[in-house]
Formats: sequence, C-alpha cells, structure tokens
Amino acid sequence: MKQSQLFTHTLKELPKDETSYNAQVLLRAGFIDKVAAGVYSFLPLGWRVMEKIRQIIREEMQSIGGQEINLPTLAPKENWQKTGRWESLDILFKIAASDKKEYALNPTHEEVVTPLAGKFINSYRELPFAVFQIQTKFRNEKRAKAGLLRGREFTMKDLYSFHADQVDLDRYYEQVIQAYVRIFNRVGLGANTYLTFAAGGSFSKYSHEFQTLTAAGEDLIYICDKCHLAVNQEIIAEQSVCPQCGDKDWRKEKAVEVGNIFKLGTRYSDAFALSYSDKNGVKQPVVMGCYGLGLSRIMGTVVEVCHDERGIIWPQSIAPFRVHLLSLKANEEAEKIYQKLGQDGIEVLYDDRDVSAGEKFAEADLIGCPYRLVISQKTLIQNGVEIKRRVSQETEIIKFNHITAYVQ
Amino acid sequence: MKQSQLFTHTLKELPKDETSYNAQVLLRAGFIDKVAAGVYSFLPLGWRVMEKIRQIIREEMQSIGGQEINLPTLAPKENWQKTGRWESLDILFKIAASDKKEYALNPTHEEVVTPLAGKFINSYRELPFAVFQIQTKFRNEKRAKAGLLRGREFTMKDLYSFHADQVDLDRYYEQVIQAYVRIFNRVGLGANTYLTFAAGGSFSKYSHEFQTLTAAGEDLIYICDKCHLAVNQEIIAEQSVCPQCGDKDWRKEKAVEVGNIFKLGTRYSDAFALSYSDKNGVKQPVVMGCYGLGLSRIMGTVVEVCHDERGIIWPQSIAPFRVHLLSLKANEEAEKIYQKLGQDGIEVLYDDRDVSAGEKFAEADLIGCPYRLVISQKTLIQNGVEIKRRVSQETEIIKFNHITAYVQ
Repeated sequence: MKQSQLFTHTLKELPKDETSYNAQVLLRAGFIDKVAAGVYSFLPLGWRVMEKIRQIIREEMQSIGGQEINLPTLAPKENWQKTGRWESLDILFKIAASDKKEYALNPTHEEVVTPLAGKFINSYRELPFAVFQIQTKFRNEKRAKAGLLRGREFTMKDLYSFHADQVDLDRYYEQVIQAYVRIFNRVGLGANTYLTFAAGGSFSKYSHEFQTLTAAGEDLIYICDKCHLAVNQEIIAEQSVCPQCGDKDWRKEKAVEVGNIFKLGTRYSDAFALSYSDKNGVKQPVVMGCYGLGLSRIMGTVVEVCHDERGIIWPQSIAPFRVHLLSLKANEEAEKIYQKLGQDGIEVLYDDRDVSAGEKFAEADLIGCPYRLVISQKTLIQNGVEIKRRVSQETEIIKFNHITAYVQ
Repeated sequence: MKQSQLFTHTLKELPKDETSYNAQVLLRAGFIDKVAAGVYSFLPLGWRVMEKIRQIIREEMQSIGGQEINLPTLAPKENWQKTGRWESLDILFKIAASDKKEYALNPTHEEVVTPLAGKFINSYRELPFAVFQIQTKFRNEKRAKAGLLRGREFTMKDLYSFHADQVDLDRYYEQVIQAYVRIFNRVGLGANTYLTFAAGGSFSKYSHEFQTLTAAGEDLIYICDKCHLAVNQEIIAEQSVCPQCGDKDWRKEKAVEVGNIFKLGTRYSDAFALSYSDKNGVKQPVVMGCYGLGLSRIMGTVVEVCHDERGIIWPQSIAPFRVHLLSLKANEEAEKIYQKLGQDGIEVLYDDRDVSAGEKFAEADLIGCPYRLVISQKTLIQNGVEIKRRVSQETEIIKFNHITAYVQ
C-alpha cells in the first residue's frame, strides 16, 4: 500500500486520559483510535494486525478439530438467569429492548452455546466435538485504563468442547494447551508466556492461564524457570512448590493473562439439562471445557513486550506489512521495487510521500515493520537499496534482485 | 468436511414463533440457530456462507479503494447527541455503563467515523478517501419477524467516503453503484436486483437502494423492465415516470432492500465540524457519502430467491461446499474421492454417516450444495459416480478421473 493513500498518519497529540503504553503508541502510530475508555476503533494498520492474529488462531483451532461458528452479542435474560450469573456477574452489561425484554451483552458464551449444543446432542455417538468463534465481547468495567489489555469492548476467541466423560475432556484439554503454545509462539510471545496454574472450579483442582511477562500486567505470577511454568498469586499459598518439579525456587513477576482454559465439568450442562444417552441408553450429563484467548489483548501485549524507545517492533507473523519501503526522492525506482515485491507476494508499505527523510525514518521506527528499505540517489549508485531490520542497528546495501530473497 | 464430524444435523422441529421462510429453512438445515426474535447464531454451514459473502464484498470494496477498518459497537451518548439522533432515532439501543455514562449500540457509524476522519483530515491533499468495515449492527426493532431480512442484531458492510466537493462525491458514488452491481451478480442476486430510486436528503433529490424481488420483501417497488431500474413506493407519486427512459410502463413487485447508498453531503461534517483547507487555505466542509450492505440480509434474501420445495439452492459462489458427496455403503471408495477432491481444491461435504439413502438424498436437497455426487455399488460397477446439479433433475455417471473437471 502506498502511504500517500493511507488515510491515517502518525499523530503527535494523544487523548489526555490515555495512560497505558500500548494504547499510547498504537494511537500515535495510527493503528487504533479511542472512542471511549476501553473502547477503540481499529484503523487500517491495526486491522491488518488483528486479521493476522485471527488467521493464526483460526488455523490452530481448526487443527484441533474446532468448528467455527458465530454466536450473537445479545442473549435473553432468561439464559443468564438459568446459571445465576444475571445477578452474580458484576461486569455484565444489561439492556432493555423495545420488546420489553432484557438482554445481556455477552462477555462469554456458555449461556448461549450450552442450549445450542442441546439441540444437537442426543447420543454418545455425537460426542466429542468442539466449536469456536472469534467475536466481540463486552465487559461493563468500572475502570478501563489498560488500553487493549482490558477493554469494555474487545475481540476474543472462545472455544467450547463437549465430552462424554472427564477422561475425554482431560485428553482434549491437553490438545488445547499444545495449540495455545503454538499460537503464542507464532504471534511472537512464546518466550515470555507461561502456562500458569490458577484457582480451579468445583470440577478440577486447578485451571490454567497463559500469562505473558510485562510490567504493564495487572497480575503477579511465580515462575519456575526450570519447568517454564508458573503459579498465580491467588493460589501460591496453597500451591507453594512447583507442581512439576516440586522446587520452591520462584521468580516473582508482573504479567498479563493472555489466555485461559477451564474444565467446566457439568456446571453449565446441569443448568441447561444438557445430557446424552450412553451405550446402555442411560442419560448422562455432558462434560464441558471452555478456552478463551483475547485477540485485541494479544495485540496490546505484543506492543508492551516488543518495542523500544522509538516505537513498536512487530514480530514478522503479525506485522501490518513485512516491508516498509522509504523513497528519498527516488520514487520512479521505488515504484518498480514496490511493484516487484508485490508480484513476489511480499506485503509492502511504500512511503511515497513528499516529506523529509527524518520524518520518514521516525515514522518507520514508530510503525515497526520488520524490514526497512531505503532507496535514494546514494543507494542507486550502488545499484541497490539500504536494508535494515527493525530489531537491529545495522544497515547494509542489497542489490535489487536480491531483495525478495532477503525479506522472504 | 465429513458430515459425521459436523456437530449440527438437520432438524425436524422448529421454534414455534419462527414465521419467515428463510429462517425456517436455514434452521431446519442447520445453518443458523435462533437465540431470540431477530437474533441468530451462525453454525458451521451458515458461517461458511457468511465468510464467502464477506470475501466477495471485501474484494469489491478494495477494488474501489476502500480501506478496511473496524469501528466499535459502543459509542458515547454525546456523539449521537451531536447529530440529534440520540433522541430522533427510535431504533437506537441505549445502555448505561458502570462509569455512569450512556452509550448507543451503533446501528450505523456516521457518529463514529466522522470524528475519526476529523483526526486525519487537514488539507485538500488528504482527500478523497473511503473506509469500510464488515461488522455487527444493532437495531431496537419493536417486531422482528422476517428472519435474516430484519434482525435486532445483524452483519453489515458500511462504506463511508470523504470528498472535497460534490463533483468528486458524484464520481465516487457512480463507482460504488458499479461495485454493488458486481457484488449482487457475484452472490447470485444480479438478475433479481434493481437499482431503485428512493427519497433523497437535503443534499440530493434521490438516494438509491438496491432492491431484490421476493414475495418475502416488506417494500413495494415499481420496475421499468426496459431500463432494469425501479422507483420505490415512497416516491412514485413525485417520480411517476422512469427517470431513465421517461416511460410509465411500471411493473409493481414486492422486494427487499439489500443495499442502500446515500449522498450525505455535509450533514455529518457540519455536526462534527469536519473541514479541510482548500488550495487557497480557506476552510471548507468535507462532503460525505455512505453506502450500506447487509451480509446476513443477503444470505436470507438468497434463500428466499433460490429454493424449491425440497430446500435451498445455493449459488456456487457462496455455497457452504461446492460438492455434497454421498456414500451409499461405499465409504472406502468415497474416502478416496473425498481426499482427491480436497487435493484439487474442491470443497466437499462428505456424508459418511450410517443413515438411509433416502435421508441422505433429502438432506442434500435441503442443504443445497451445487453438486451432489453419489457413490454406491451401482456406480462402482460403472467405474464412476452419479452426479446431479442441485438446479437440475438430470443425473449422469461420471468416471472417477473426470470429477474435478466437471465440478470446477
């Protein structure tokens, strides 16, 4: 894309009430806009990042048999009353409609997916299965000050699995853990993300969260470096040694919860009478699991983890563009490179604007594409472009016909 | 996909309050689920259709320079007060949050996109541009009885364009009309869809709608068959002859509005003080256009238009699967064909279940994939499969190695 055609540009002024780093830098770089506290618009650069995160998550959910669906935002009050959460869940947005009924804006979808599953499950032969969606969620937060880390409105992937028994849930739960590990690796958070033991429910001693280390995090976790796992503050009193190696060699760090997985057992099946007939024709409750992952939160977390004083450093897998091509008064030759890279399937943001070199360099660092290519009279003499990785200080000159191989 | 693994199946019982044909047949075939009146979940088959419609619309919006963004559902009361629509728009959902502020659930996004544009427009050099999104909208309808044709919650594409003057808006408006024509052709509604003159605003005499003929429609339009355009009932008194040929040879039909395009002029620019500096440094109001298209409504309309007494007849471009492969006790050979077609890039729903041939045939007709392939002992003797198009009554035997070429 040509930057002269992009309707956004970098901004110097920020909303006064924006205190979180991730939102500040994403606002400055033109990735998002702030509509209200905890409510953001995604602009072309930001939406490209979200779509890449979405595609990675979708592929990994499909790889463990997840069937994609889309559940609505509005759910009738009665659904939420059946589980007792209409009254107990303090972050539930409630709205009255002109049909004189009340609805919740779903912050999670157990109250919708459980009765849905009930329409299709009769026999043990129909189990197990898993469904997922990538969709907007709502939380009526009192305060929303963490940018994309905790919004009133945000994008989440939620996966729900349905099983004949606990053993089968346990089996699938392990598959989900592995899929989550792959996702965090692919979006560039693998090294900083820990499978973390958290308080369980009535059904299992512990649930699991995935926590990513960052000073912006609202949680405290205790890491066992030997096992690359952690325990959250909530349960450190009862789980005072590493559940894997038994050591007590904890490192305490601030972290943000980027995903959680939970054995629901029969809590929601019981509320909605979700059962199946087993091989002997006896009715049994369906055993459920739920698995959340915040897309906008992942985007915010990546920004918190991957940046320097000049701006964002996107992992290649979710960068809005692979290459940022800067023309310093060499638009004719830059245009050819832009066309060639496009033909080679490389995504390029091409800064064809008539602004100073200093401004172009500063914006390239702020926006944070993995490769910066500069073409100028100086590089033309050498029959090439200057190339620099966003993560590095080194520049080098690459001949025109080697560019694609270099950035691929 | 193997049908034995699909968590949905066709249903015999329908919600008692569902009176619209499109929702009835989509519920029966397992494409959607009803959560409340005008509120539906999209199940795996239905979500595949929605994703195909989304991709077609996205391509056509990009082809006219649309930049994809994503605006939130929640917008502060103040935004809607600035245009006077907080009070005047009766279908506006309003919600109170625990920050003691009120928000609208956006049914359209002028109140969000106009102040957003104001952050990036300074000079005439930044105009024109257009942004679009494909996103969930909300309307607080008193009654919602038309299935996917009129929901309380639904998916829409909305495009907004920003121009220096009326001439440039007029130019772009014509481009959008052509893009809409391509979209309706691609989703299979081209022949039944009419560019229809409707009441304008303060800025132009007429706006335009795209109306698709169907008995399920809530609108009445007057068609000029010579010009393949129409006038809606609202304006037939003042526009009593065809605006193109001047004839009065109208054919009156029921129709559903599947898209609308509107020259907003400066109505929203004025409300949000959206202006730019012209070449002489003089401030001028930005001229805007808005262009809507309902994705879930298109899906419902296709079902109303394309069906017979046995079920849906999907256009190839948006069918959930290209091929429905039925194995009649020949799963070993069917599996090979399923694998081969998958390698050839053909999307196949493979009915590998242990149910009667009659049930398989009835479900294939109900679900409505374009090609039905049957493999049985009878076809194996002939070294092939029986093939039938959903639109036709004819069957024929095709040799194994000719299948891909036939269905491509």
